[in-house]
Amino acid sequence: MSTVDFKGQAGWLEQIHWGADGLVPVIAQDAASGRVLMCAWANRDALAETAATGTAVYWSRSRSRRWMKGEESGHLQHVREIRLDCDADVVLLDIEQEGGIACHTGRESCFFKVLRDGVWVDVDPVLKDPAEIYAHATKPERTGA
Amino acid sequence: MSTVDFKGQAGWLEQIHWGADGLVPVIAQDAASGRVLMCAWANRDALAETAATGTAVYWSRSRSRRWMKGEESGHLQHVREIRLDCDADVVLLDIEQEGGIACHTGRESCFFKVLRDGVWVDVDPVLKDPAEIYAHATKPERTGA
Repeated sequence: MSTVDFKGQAGWLEQIHWGADGLVPVIAQDAASGRVLMCAWANRDALAETAATGTAVYWSRSRSRRWMKGEESGHLQHVREIRLDCDADVVLLDIEQEGGIACHTGRESCFFKVLRDGVWVDVDPVLKDPAEIYAHATKPERTGA
Repeated sequence: MSTVDFKGQAGWLEQIHWGADGLVPVIAQDAASGRVLMCAWANRDALAETAATGTAVYWSRSRSRRWMKGEESGHLQHVREIRLDCDADVVLLDIEQEGGIACHTGRESCFFKVLRDGVWVDVDPVLKDPAEIYAHATKPERTGA
């Protein structure tokens, strides 16, 4: 649970068509490179906090808890713009990726697998060893989890 | 149902972590502008057909049927690359958008609402009147539906 009360400014949150599980997909796109870095999920509190603080916060489905991207890796996402799609059920964040690494594998983007001749091929380089990224973490975060 | 049998080349499909409903989110990004155009859903058959034909096919949740993007508007999506994220539960399509319009509202992208001071503001222009786009359609498609 967030310790900050965002309930007062919730009008725009009510206009989002949340899924049955109270979540919506949230796409993070790099403001500089234009690359789609990751797609995760947010509930109301996470998105409210993202809007209020300018730092991307998600809802981890695997851990069932609030998850500030970069909380353990230091790879925070600074949000420049928040967009919503035509049927109000997907959010798009225009972000500046601290460290230039969004993926827990140490790559720029989580979308590093390309389909080639019926096989998924890892095509992007690992920029930093995950063991180094999460050296001081209690438990490595998994992007998109 | 698709009339083509794609079951023979399904190895890469098995590596995708399909949701409980048999779907995954699919993000379409414009190859030229880099803009995220839409985010919809695909089941196995839809993604298999996308890979086999090079034209984006989705699963419409609202109509519970296969949906080839542009089937009524003519705004087909030609797929240059199919990517998968690190935890294999989101697909990213690099596409060429026929007509330069992905949204059923006549805009380039479905993500035309920007959050400004707690209000969703429509910031992108309508490039073509939807009434004109769907003049010959039996029922206008809704992107992302």
